[in-house]
Amino acid sequence: MAKPKFELKTPKGTKDWGGQDMVIRDKIFSTITEVFKRHGGVTIDTPVFELRDILAGKYGEDSKLIYDLADQGGEICSLRYDLTVPFARFLAMNKDIQNIKRYHIAKVYRRDQPAMTKGRMREFYQCDFDVAGTYDPMLPDAEIIRIICEVFEGLGWNKTYTIKLNHRKILDGIFQVCGVPEDKIRTISSAVDKLDKLPWADVRKEMTEEKGLDGEVADRIGEWVVLKGQNDLLERLRSDEKLSANEFMKQGMTDLGLLFEYLEAFNVLDRVSFDLSLARGLDYYTGIIYEVVTEGSAPSATPSAEQAEAPKPAKKKKGKGPDAEDDDRSNDPTVGVGSVAAGGRYDNLVGMFSGKTQIPCVGISFGVDRIFSITKARMAAATSTSLVRNNEVDVYVMAFGGKGFLKERMAICAQLWEAGIKAEFLYKIKPKVPAQFKAAEVNGVPFAIFLGDDEVAAGKVKVKEMGLQEGHPEKEGILVDLKDMVAEVKVRLERKKQLDQVTSQAEGLKVVDGIKAEETTPETPAPAS
Amino acid sequence: MAKPKFELKTPKGTKDWGGQDMVIRDKIFSTITEVFKRHGGVTIDTPVFELRDILAGKYGEDSKLIYDLADQGGEICSLRYDLTVPFARFLAMNKDIQNIKRYHIAKVYRRDQPAMTKGRMREFYQCDFDVAGTYDPMLPDAEIIRIICEVFEGLGWNKTYTIKLNHRKILDGIFQVCGVPEDKIRTISSAVDKLDKLPWADVRKEMTEEKGLDGEVADRIGEWVVLKGQNDLLERLRSDEKLSANEFMKQGMTDLGLLFEYLEAFNVLDRVSFDLSLARGLDYYTGIIYEVVTEGSAPSATPSAEQAEAPKPAKKKKGKGPDAEDDDRSNDPTVGVGSVAAGGRYDNLVGMFSGKTQIPCVGISFGVDRIFSITKARMAAATSTSLVRNNEVDVYVMAFGGKGFLKERMAICAQLWEAGIKAEFLYKIKPKVPAQFKAAEVNGVPFAIFLGDDEVAAGKVKVKEMGLQEGHPEKEGILVDLKDMVAEVKVRLERKKQLDQVTSQAEGLKVVDGIKAEETTPETPAPAS
Repeated sequence: MAKPKFELKTPKGTKDWGGQDMVIRDKIFSTITEVFKRHGGVTIDTPVFELRDILAGKYGEDSKLIYDLADQGGEICSLRYDLTVPFARFLAMNKDIQNIKRYHIAKVYRRDQPAMTKGRMREFYQCDFDVAGTYDPMLPDAEIIRIICEVFEGLGWNKTYTIKLNHRKILDGIFQVCGVPEDKIRTISSAVDKLDKLPWADVRKEMTEEKGLDGEVADRIGEWVVLKGQNDLLERLRSDEKLSANEFMKQGMTDLGLLFEYLEAFNVLDRVSFDLSLARGLDYYTGIIYEVVTEGSAPSATPSAEQAEAPKPAKKKKGKGPDAEDDDRSNDPTVGVGSVAAGGRYDNLVGMFSGKTQIPCVGISFGVDRIFSITKARMAAATSTSLVRNNEVDVYVMAFGGKGFLKERMAICAQLWEAGIKAEFLYKIKPKVPAQFKAAEVNGVPFAIFLGDDEVAAGKVKVKEMGLQEGHPEKEGILVDLKDMVAEVKVRLERKKQLDQVTSQAEGLKVVDGIKAEETTPETPAPAS
Repeated sequence: MAKPKFELKTPKGTKDWGGQDMVIRDKIFSTITEVFKRHGGVTIDTPVFELRDILAGKYGEDSKLIYDLADQGGEICSLRYDLTVPFARFLAMNKDIQNIKRYHIAKVYRRDQPAMTKGRMREFYQCDFDVAGTYDPMLPDAEIIRIICEVFEGLGWNKTYTIKLNHRKILDGIFQVCGVPEDKIRTISSAVDKLDKLPWADVRKEMTEEKGLDGEVADRIGEWVVLKGQNDLLERLRSDEKLSANEFMKQGMTDLGLLFEYLEAFNVLDRVSFDLSLARGLDYYTGIIYEVVTEGSAPSATPSAEQAEAPKPAKKKKGKGPDAEDDDRSNDPTVGVGSVAAGGRYDNLVGMFSGKTQIPCVGISFGVDRIFSITKARMAAATSTSLVRNNEVDVYVMAFGGKGFLKERMAICAQLWEAGIKAEFLYKIKPKVPAQFKAAEVNGVPFAIFLGDDEVAAGKVKVKEMGLQEGHPEKEGILVDLKDMVAEVKVRLERKKQLDQVTSQAEGLKVVDGIKAEETTPETPAPAS
């Protein structure tokens, strides 16, 4: 057959997931889903593309990163850019839903400059949890912060992350009081947002030289936006006469005071850093905003929260459009991947669709590809051997001797499957013994069932735990009647499962619970009976 | 705020999923995934769009149903049309993978005429399981048939489905022996495929009048393609001297003979109907082909297997392109939804990408939207009350009396969450009692925790099972120390879970295991202590 003429690849900025990466990512999804459900979350699914008008005017200058579908007659559509705008559209269309805790785990699309090693892709997953509805102030907001902590604790990150938190109205209040003209507030805000990667001097330069802000105004801003803290910082803001007289400031400070109280009741206040330099890109936020950084995600020159919510478009290099070859900008894997989760309160977005009914919302978006990159790097650092099994097979059914016992193996598998036990056999009429062992060991299958002449003649099988040490009394397996096989296997699987849980808890490897591979030493085939 | 100018809807042929539909569909996914894993399946994830060249030339005249992305500079891409071609592309790119049992549950896209009530959408889910690799003949094929049975039994369909099965080589052999010219074999094959909706006379007419086949040749075909059976039909083919001399026939009959033996060993032979009228649309099949029909999916005029694998394009009405308004063609929900699963063996597809290395494959694709429609209709028929809970919350934490006990409720929730228990509280500082009961009952939450003046003062809570009958000794809840609360709730949840499993097994409602709603009678609030 002739070599095909097309290039054999996935589109730029996309990739296939398979093997151990897929297993690790699935485990991350299920950890996150478990937390979402624990808080009463229900999931929805929206189409991967929306009418283009729905997305228009929501993402500011990042709108140019939206993927469009071709006009093939009929409606004009684009791939979704995030899960938040489709959620607001969903709420506007379903007027009977006045409140919901919804989660949504799905792919979103951005024609950004890919940076694979940092987990910045054109197709990537977001895991969103949002609370919509009219409630007493800051209660859903506090629960979102609690959810963030439960997710990262569930992933075994053990407090190695910080939730940077700010309030749009506090930021706007500071800008007003410092004397930023009304029409410059958004652009000055986005300059402040760069403080996580640039020193104040550079940001000040951008404000004054590029954006024409008065130098004295910039200096007044500079006194505030470098501050971090918790209640202490809130106290400092309150004690400033000018700031505390500002209407925006008053609202923001009341919100944050209440939030800190609630976070204490939820026992997560220590994870939060009230950080006046956090501004966030999107226009639609109206209250608290936050992003999560972790060790290795926010070194000196970390891009902030790009893919967790709204990426800044890549600066084009001369002669290189966004479709030039992949540009990782750094091959150093220790360079940060940006924030791993981000979100905030947006009380006016649903109204942009419904025309009048507002439904206040607050939410969080987890950037799974970045969380994956960090998790994988940590797993690789923690151990030199593979910790992850590719499949979940419990039992490998093997034949010994020359007859192959194909139909006996098939009937045994059918019995195991019937009982819900995961089982495989080799697709050979007369399989060789080493080939069967190899197939079982490559996937870390914990148990084998042996069939030889003697066993078949006696209506029995041998059940053997793989990887037992030499000298173990059951090293050669134990003989059981065919009719007792399923019960015997079930007992042994349950026992092994409990043992493995104890082991992996002891090792603190929460994220790989249940996917820890058997560390089997290769077996030499035992004699048939 | 002014009414927005754009139309508030999802694109044609797409829909949002939420509420009970989403819960039922998720349950279908998890049932299918469980079966796939039981057979050693591992999952992969491929991008939602592919380079257009990858998809080109794979779908015959249905290629016009492919969604294209707009050319925004860079690569030319299209949305995937199925999961099979991306899988073959994946195998061709990953040359280290010579064999795999892969499953993939994901959305695919076809610009077909939507028919919502039948579950025919432009964006819909497929659940695919494929075995790739060189093995002894018919072993993976037999396991795929077994998997089909386990999926539908797992969904509680209890043998109310039939796997129609044929072999491409047998069909081609019959056509050769009957005298169909080589260049007419594919077009005559697609006429035969219509026998599930048209009588033989109509199909004969299409063959002779439209496709210019000799009448006598058509009559000879007609003697064979109306036949159904199992080993009996195979025997009848074998005993025909002319047929059994044909090379294609020989290969096909050997395959099927072996397959029937293996299906017997797997205890699923009774689910299969060897049906000579089954032809399947796609060109790439090379061995056995099959599709699954069920009661209500295949009445007299059922379109066959359209969306489970390759849809026939909708006939255009005068002046109505594929983007005209939704055309359900029938509002009668009893009209069939076509096949609910379909697949076959395709040994040459990977080679179309790799250029030389062939990897033989066999697989099955489940059409989840159709399975969903049937499952939902059956659930609605089986019961008049709601069987499905929207969320999975275990415990609703409530305050009694005027104080609200907000921070106490928050701290209790935090304790429950810490222990992995799903819990909610009302986002009100001083919630009314009826509002709290309503919030718990609307989601069928099985347990409540009450906090009143006396409980808080004594460091206790009341744990109450919802929906207990009047006169039940624990109707008012039981008082427990705060420090024993988590343990007490865990014991009661476990007990209730086991009880519910027994109940739903007794009712044979396998598909709604674990999502069966509490049938609570609305509670009148009990006094605070």
